Amino acid sequence: MFRKRHPETGARPGTLVIGQDAMPTVVSVVQYDRDSVRDIDDHEIESTQGLLGDDVVTWIKVQGLGDEETLREIGKQFQIHPLLLEDIVNHPQRPKVETVDGQLLIIARSVIPDGAVPGELEQISLLVGKQFVVTFEERHGATFAPIRQRLNNASGFLRQSGADYLAYALLDIIIDGFYPVLELLGDELERLEDEVIRNPTTEVLDRLNRMRNRLALLRRRVWSQREAMHELLHHDSGLISPETTVFLRDTCDHCLQASEVIEMYRDSASNLMNTYMSSVANRTNEVMKTLTIMSSTFIPLTFVAGIYGMNFEHMPELAWRWSYPAVWVVLCMITVVMLGFFRVKGWIGRVE
Amino acid sequence: MFRKRHPETGARPGTLVIGQDAMPTVVSVVQYDRDSVRDIDDHEIESTQGLLGDDVVTWIKVQGLGDEETLREIGKQFQIHPLLLEDIVNHPQRPKVETVDGQLLIIARSVIPDGAVPGELEQISLLVGKQFVVTFEERHGATFAPIRQRLNNASGFLRQSGADYLAYALLDIIIDGFYPVLELLGDELERLEDEVIRNPTTEVLDRLNRMRNRLALLRRRVWSQREAMHELLHHDSGLISPETTVFLRDTCDHCLQASEVIEMYRDSASNLMNTYMSSVANRTNEVMKTLTIMSSTFIPLTFVAGIYGMNFEHMPELAWRWSYPAVWVVLCMITVVMLGFFRVKGWIGRVE
Amino acid sequence: MFRKRHPETGARPGTLVIGQDAMPTVVSVVQYDRDSVRDIDDHEIESTQGLLGDDVVTWIKVQGLGDEETLREIGKQFQIHPLLLEDIVNHPQRPKVETVDGQLLIIARSVIPDGAVPGELEQISLLVGKQFVVTFEERHGATFAPIRQRLNNASGFLRQSGADYLAYALLDIIIDGFYPVLELLGDELERLEDEVIRNPTTEVLDRLNRMRNRLALLRRRVWSQREAMHELLHHDSGLISPETTVFLRDTCDHCLQASEVIEMYRDSASNLMNTYMSSVANRTNEVMKTLTIMSSTFIPLTFVAGIYGMNFEHMPELAWRWSYPAVWVVLCMITVVMLGFFRVKGWIGRVE
Amino acid sequence: MFRKRHPETGARPGTLVIGQDAMPTVVSVVQYDRDSVRDIDDHEIESTQGLLGDDVVTWIKVQGLGDEETLREIGKQFQIHPLLLEDIVNHPQRPKVETVDGQLLIIARSVIPDGAVPGELEQISLLVGKQFVVTFEERHGATFAPIRQRLNNASGFLRQSGADYLAYALLDIIIDGFYPVLELLGDELERLEDEVIRNPTTEVLDRLNRMRNRLALLRRRVWSQREAMHELLHHDSGLISPETTVFLRDTCDHCLQASEVIEMYRDSASNLMNTYMSSVANRTNEVMKTLTIMSSTFIPLTFVAGIYGMNFEHMPELAWRWSYPAVWVVLCMITVVMLGFFRVKGWIGRVE
Amino acid sequence: MFRKRHPETGARPGTLVIGQDAMPTVVSVVQYDRDSVRDIDDHEIESTQGLLGDDVVTWIKVQGLGDEETLREIGKQFQIHPLLLEDIVNHPQRPKVETVDGQLLIIARSVIPDGAVPGELEQISLLVGKQFVVTFEERHGATFAPIRQRLNNASGFLRQSGADYLAYALLDIIIDGFYPVLELLGDELERLEDEVIRNPTTEVLDRLNRMRNRLALLRRRVWSQREAMHELLHHDSGLISPETTVFLRDTCDHCLQASEVIEMYRDSASNLMNTYMSSVANRTNEVMKTLTIMSSTFIPLTFVAGIYGMNFEHMPELAWRWSYPAVWVVLCMITVVMLGFFRVKGWIGRVE
Repeated sequence: MFRKRHPETGARPGTLVIGQDAMPTVVSVVQYDRDSVRDIDDHEIESTQGLLGDDVVTWIKVQGLGDEETLREIGKQFQIHPLLLEDIVNHPQRPKVETVDGQLLIIARSVIPDGAVPGELEQISLLVGKQFVVTFEERHGATFAPIRQRLNNASGFLRQSGADYLAYALLDIIIDGFYPVLELLGDELERLEDEVIRNPTTEVLDRLNRMRNRLALLRRRVWSQREAMHELLHHDSGLISPETTVFLRDTCDHCLQASEVIEMYRDSASNLMNTYMSSVANRTNEVMKTLTIMSSTFIPLTFVAGIYGMNFEHMPELAWRWSYPAVWVVLCMITVVMLGFFRVKGWIGRVE
Repeated sequence: MFRKRHPETGARPGTLVIGQDAMPTVVSVVQYDRDSVRDIDDHEIESTQGLLGDDVVTWIKVQGLGDEETLREIGKQFQIHPLLLEDIVNHPQRPKVETVDGQLLIIARSVIPDGAVPGELEQISLLVGKQFVVTFEERHGATFAPIRQRLNNASGFLRQSGADYLAYALLDIIIDGFYPVLELLGDELERLEDEVIRNPTTEVLDRLNRMRNRLALLRRRVWSQREAMHELLHHDSGLISPETTVFLRDTCDHCLQASEVIEMYRDSASNLMNTYMSSVANRTNEVMKTLTIMSSTFIPLTFVAGIYGMNFEHMPELAWRWSYPAVWVVLCMITVVMLGFFRVKGWIGRVE
Repeated sequence: MFRKRHPETGARPGTLVIGQDAMPTVVSVVQYDRDSVRDIDDHEIESTQGLLGDDVVTWIKVQGLGDEETLREIGKQFQIHPLLLEDIVNHPQRPKVETVDGQLLIIARSVIPDGAVPGELEQISLLVGKQFVVTFEERHGATFAPIRQRLNNASGFLRQSGADYLAYALLDIIIDGFYPVLELLGDELERLEDEVIRNPTTEVLDRLNRMRNRLALLRRRVWSQREAMHELLHHDSGLISPETTVFLRDTCDHCLQASEVIEMYRDSASNLMNTYMSSVANRTNEVMKTLTIMSSTFIPLTFVAGIYGMNFEHMPELAWRWSYPAVWVVLCMITVVMLGFFRVKGWIGRVE
Repeated sequence: MFRKRHPETGARPGTLVIGQDAMPTVVSVVQYDRDSVRDIDDHEIESTQGLLGDDVVTWIKVQGLGDEETLREIGKQFQIHPLLLEDIVNHPQRPKVETVDGQLLIIARSVIPDGAVPGELEQISLLVGKQFVVTFEERHGATFAPIRQRLNNASGFLRQSGADYLAYALLDIIIDGFYPVLELLGDELERLEDEVIRNPTTEVLDRLNRMRNRLALLRRRVWSQREAMHELLHHDSGLISPETTVFLRDTCDHCLQASEVIEMYRDSASNLMNTYMSSVANRTNEVMKTLTIMSSTFIPLTFVAGIYGMNFEHMPELAWRWSYPAVWVVLCMITVVMLGFFRVKGWIGRVE
Repeated sequence: MFRKRHPETGARPGTLVIGQDAMPTVVSVVQYDRDSVRDIDDHEIESTQGLLGDDVVTWIKVQGLGDEETLREIGKQFQIHPLLLEDIVNHPQRPKVETVDGQLLIIARSVIPDGAVPGELEQISLLVGKQFVVTFEERHGATFAPIRQRLNNASGFLRQSGADYLAYALLDIIIDGFYPVLELLGDELERLEDEVIRNPTTEVLDRLNRMRNRLALLRRRVWSQREAMHELLHHDSGLISPETTVFLRDTCDHCLQASEVIEMYRDSASNLMNTYMSSVANRTNEVMKTLTIMSSTFIPLTFVAGIYGMNFEHMPELAWRWSYPAVWVVLCMITVVMLGFFRVKGWIGRVE
């Protein structure tokens, strides 16, 4: 539910905590300008800074946060404040936006496209400079693959624009990644809606509960993402051009929309809990009616039968010629009276 | 529940997604000034821009969002930013107001007047310029027919005023369209209120649930519409004259009122859920009382009958002359005691 | 629940909708200054404007909103904007305050003093000018009768002051009208509180439900009234003198207090719903205990009796001399054990 | 629940309403400076104003609000606005702070130290001037006795300071008076918490309900007191010196703390309601299990016994030698099977 | 639940209340600069002020708040306002930040690392001056031990920086102390989540309830801590250097994160309550089904057996050759019909 990778209490600030299941750090570089795109896969981290140029946009992709030394080296190269580096590595952090020394650090949370559990998130951090973007991903995933492909299109807006537009494109892909998950959750919610009324079992209750927890988690994440996006929009670092701001506003809007959908789902899921209760209560009521009708009809009959099962020597009825048929008449009358009573109560139309 | 027409994750911004059930795009133009009204139905989209004049108000009606090329052409003619065009076409979007280059884009949601489900909404976008209004509707509906009729009235305020008043009139018709739906929902709510107390079946629960979901959806829509209207009021695009602003404030007020009614409905529907639970619990209680009275009265009687049904050889009572009548006396006494007990408990006044 | 008198969708703004049950419009005028008070009952509406004077305060009372022509005439005489006239006539509107051309329009909602349902409201609008007040009431009621009486008191503050103080006095009477209704509702709430715990029937549930709906409605109304009062206080129309503002603040305070009382009632009513549920659950529990104690005690006894009712030829016990008393001993023991068990469970202290 | 002493609707503003149970008004005066303290108990109200001096602090204590004439006289002497005098006398009012003509009126609500119901409140008003404080109390209580005692201490800060510090000391005592009540309520809440789980009777439900109503009332009161304190802190009447402001901030802090404790209590009480429901449901479940186990075990046994109680002439089993023991074996087997079934269900570990 | 150590109502402000279980006050001093660290354990409190130097940072650790005289002496030495000293000693106070005379007082709440109850808190106050920090702890705990150790590292940032960085390091350790507690609570919550669905006993309800109370308390504390941290960040006392502010922002972020986790836990715990109810209702439903199936199946059978147990002389069936087997056939048919009925209802797949 909540596992934050945090240093021991009292450790000096800036301590990096590498998880045991952290993936090894792989660094790859893409450089492009209007004329060309260049992939630099095997690159010495120590000289990354030297790669940067004023005319080209450099995208340094850091995947996997398992290699403390490499991460520290990158931090040193790009003069990342130790506390910010801690935020990048010791995930999960709250999404946020920070400017330090003319660089912009954006910490975001992204849906893992092929995660086992829908709505599982990883932390993605973006360091945006004048002519470069450094992305830090938890996993060696393909989240940003579409961007790499769009870079091949020489006439695309992406190739024509600077690092700020690259950062926008990366953020946009992170936010848009929420939509398929929302659709999956919406489908599950609709299924639950059906089952809660038709078949309110404990298993449905369990699924409903897990759904609510997942929505609560997702909501917090999207909410703080939304705040971070909002902050980004009203930033004045000078790193983001007015043209890109228009695009960013659109992404911010998508984020808002996702968060509204989640709110609606939460309302829905919360209603479902009440509906579940009502549905179970209704079923218990129906079960009770059946029991009451059966018991209340047969118990008086059994009593009558019991009466004439007594062995008293002086029971004049026992010897009478027509008592047995008379008892049957009485039994039938009792039955009719009871059923009539239940029909008046309105309990019988549905049970039989 | 939630189906947004959105491009694939990672697609370049501005990608239009045409739904399979999107209606073909039909463009019609109405031009009017104080002296005349002119309908231009079959018009080449490529030269729409040329139609505009400084002295006449031009209303370009785009119905159906199924024809990507036409839509792109209109976008080009009116210099709509690709992202805004995306918002117009890839519905549903959140209602919003944007000004770009001296044009005002209003994205609104309108009730489909004759929709199958009350409260079904379509997206209507308005692009307002100095002397023209472009409306984009999802369907070939008659939402704006009353405006076309009022345009025939040469002495009407509509003919006397500019494009801003036309935009107001269109918005006003969109907002007013919510009232009939609210009345329908209010009627259904009143019916539910009756049934929840009188006859709390699963079917009522189901209807109540659907009502709540519909209200939740409607609320979000009207809420963001209200925000958009508010934003529009405090706009400074210079496109809307002070006289029209007075009218817009009235429309904004209607929007507020609609949203208050929805809030009240939501409260009511939420109360109804609790009432449903209470009503079912009450019924179960009544069923239980019946069962308890019947069982608790007859079970002791049956026991007494059982006692004298035993076959022991040495049961002196069996041979006594008056034991059978005595047993009947005992049975009657037990019955009286039990019924008295239930009357004291207050369970019996209502059951029999 | 919600019935707004609104024009058809698409009607031109300013359309007045006269309800079928609207009362005929009656206009009466009161004029006063320090020296005298004058009632002008039969007055030509066309020349109302001519009546106004700089030295006297003129109070034009319009009762009943059933006569469109008269209302339009008044609108014309006092230059009321068509949209504002629409708001005055097409009730119910949200309480609000508007200034147009140096006149102040206040739309308020007032409790009908002798309404069939406690908390029923009518719309009262006040148009305040330099030296006059026009009041529009839905009904020919006596809401403002106390003001007319106080006007007779030549030394009263009312006679000494201007139109703004008259407007305050009228508003004050509207707000104070809420208190008796609140006390009625409070009494009903206390009655419900008692009954919910003592006697949770469906009828109580129904009353509780209606109470909650009424409180929800009243809350919205008082809330928007409160907002309107607040707006009025921070107005800068220059029509209200600082001395009157002190009085208005007091009225605003009363409005706030009324709205706080309603909030408390709502909390209380909402608690009551939970209490109702708990109370019913408690009762069902008690019923169940009775059933369980009776059944669980007698069913084993009946079984024992049944055993010795069997007709096997070879049942040695049947022939024994002391089996019958022995069976009685066994039955008593079973009873004692069962009752002891229930006492240990703590179920028996309360049931028998 | 809610009984406000308010004048009839339409009465002229400033009308004082003297309750029938209002205590007679008693005025006493304390005057002090650095050198001396002087009690003036029997004092003509008409000349109170004359008592004031520039060098001494005068504290006029008005206890009991039953004497309209005296109250009006005091109002005249200290130039209290008729509406403010109305607020002082026609309690309960919302706590508030008003400055008029260089005087500060503070209306506060104070716990009655020895009230019958914990949390009962009385209204205390403070009129603070340059060199005097007038206090208005509903009752002849000893709320302010500690202040009088501290005045005897010549070296105390109270004697060294002006009227503003006296006002602070009085307010401080009012706010601190909430703490003992909160502790009482906290104790009751803890008791309820125990009983709700152990013994959820209707009486506990009733107490819980009353607790919630009392907390709701107390919350509103402390809340508006807190607002009033906050307003007082940001006042600029010049009557309160910066030194006293530091002390007032502390009192404001206490008020905040009290209001937070009440919020927590409310949360707790609201949780308790749910717990109550759950607890009752749990008990019903347990009762049902007992009934089900007893019935389901013995009903089949009784049926078997019933079978061999039949009187058919041709029932071969009846004549067999070992049928009776065989039936016992069957009965035992049925019992074992049923109990095994219940053990598997997990219902039996707890019941027997 | 709520026990504040507060002076009697009416006591003069600044009164210290020493709890009976307050630990004796122990003062120890650590002095350090870039070159050396010096522990001064047995020190006369009267001359603490004399210890301070411009070149060294002095950390005065006050542990235990049981010795009024010592505390007053410290207050005098460092010119702490009597009200602030009261806040330091009369815990618990709301976390807050105050600046007086160029000194900064921070009142914080810290988790007791090895507390009996997870989430138990103690109050820790920090007085920050130009070159010194005074810490006041309730207990003789080891909360700050890691800081003392880090001071030994001559090249550490702590040794290089001033008193403001020491204050940050102390605050950071307080905030970070919340994380282990949150993890403990999270684990308990997950355990509860399992048990609520699988085994909803009263004991689970009790634990859930205590969990909710603890979360409510923790939430308030962390919330006001968060506010205090925020206030500290936007302080302008000049005591905190810009470099340290960057670090403080990080601590503030941690505080925010902790408070978000608590919110999520609260949501979760609140959902669990509903789930508990649903789970119990479900179980009751299952119990009822078992009872109904058993009763409804066997009661008719018993009735049939009862019929032929009657002793009428004239019951022709009794003498027939095949009546006994025929009765068995009837009984089996009844059983099959009943079980079929229950299978149609869908009650039987789960019970047997």
